[in-house]
Amino acid sequence: MRIALCGGTGDIGEGLALRFAYDTDHELLIGSRDPEKARVKAEEYVTELGSRGVETTIKGFENAMAADRADVVVLAVPPYYVRDTVESISDRLDAETILVSPAVGMQRDDAGLHYNRPSAGSVTAMVAGTAPDDVSVVGAFHSLSADKLAALDVELAEDTLLVGDDEDAVDIVRLLAEGIEGLRPLYAGPLGNAAEVESLTPLLINLAKHNDLHDVGVRFE
Amino acid sequence: MRIALCGGTGDIGEGLALRFAYDTDHELLIGSRDPEKARVKAEEYVTELGSRGVETTIKGFENAMAADRADVVVLAVPPYYVRDTVESISDRLDAETILVSPAVGMQRDDAGLHYNRPSAGSVTAMVAGTAPDDVSVVGAFHSLSADKLAALDVELAEDTLLVGDDEDAVDIVRLLAEGIEGLRPLYAGPLGNAAEVESLTPLLINLAKHNDLHDVGVRFE
Repeated sequence: MRIALCGGTGDIGEGLALRFAYDTDHELLIGSRDPEKARVKAEEYVTELGSRGVETTIKGFENAMAADRADVVVLAVPPYYVRDTVESISDRLDAETILVSPAVGMQRDDAGLHYNRPSAGSVTAMVAGTAPDDVSVVGAFHSLSADKLAALDVELAEDTLLVGDDEDAVDIVRLLAEGIEGLRPLYAGPLGNAAEVESLTPLLINLAKHNDLHDVGVRFE
Repeated sequence: MRIALCGGTGDIGEGLALRFAYDTDHELLIGSRDPEKARVKAEEYVTELGSRGVETTIKGFENAMAADRADVVVLAVPPYYVRDTVESISDRLDAETILVSPAVGMQRDDAGLHYNRPSAGSVTAMVAGTAPDDVSVVGAFHSLSADKLAALDVELAEDTLLVGDDEDAVDIVRLLAEGIEGLRPLYAGPLGNAAEVESLTPLLINLAKHNDLHDVGVRFE
């Protein structure tokens, strides 16, 4: 499959790119607003993987160009850029494209980090409301630590939660997630359940702080 | 320690009563609006424990009477009774009493179950706002399955999250929780972080439904 990581030069984009390249045979396209930056980071990922004996091709493009060529587009951008990013790639998406939303809006107060619920109900719902109607949107990869993903020597043993209304699209993202070793995807239901899934991320960060749990993940069992 | 379970005749109260009695030496008081019902259920718990070789005394009282005698009062009532229950026991609480809030308000729509955030910010914050100022409030035990607790043959292996502003009170509830075998308490920070903790419960129920995970618990690692 061809996976575009819009914002693939950032932390979570880097982590997902390295894990997908290391553990799977999917073709990866790194997207950025700045295509030169995307090319430089793609080269860095290729070099890092080469040093671990993985020969691969990863190319960098401007976000819309990356999205244009992809079967699955991951919106690996900060929450406040999500809407702009979707708008900037919208005319490159079609009914065959799956948009994946991992972003979580958070705000900090004296107590800790909190879920900053968008007026659409969730970031994933905001993506669905911004993308063309025929594009399927799946929320996934929210609670993964970018650092832990990028540290390829660290074995993962955690769950990632999927939300989405289109079950075929959810099944494709489930297969993608299963391709990353040690990651178990669980379906949390339709898009309307995304807020509770996205709320996990600030909770994980608060727990990490108070319990000395570095790069903590979650398992449901 | 003396633990009062207000609403201890209900499902979560029964589960906690049985586990505390089975795994610890704390003295248990079952509270209910109807003292006769509390006495009958307390007798049932004693009989159930006796059939497993645990000889113990558990007594039933009207909620305020149970709270009056306790070091720790667990508000094991449905979320819509929490405020009334706190008001009905308030004059029996003092600066030495710790109030524990496990309740979560939820609502259902077509997608699944959702966290129904009270205007106070969380159920735990609502308890703190209703109780006398000098009473310490700790949120705990939200995500535990009442059925799994009550099934004493089932080994627990899950986390429970604590929130509270008074760290001494949190430490006491942490010790209580550690007394239940297989339960690991993790501190999620001050009361202001309770909404993300309470949001876990509807998420667990949605995940159980979609992934055939009966009585699912959560672990952070």
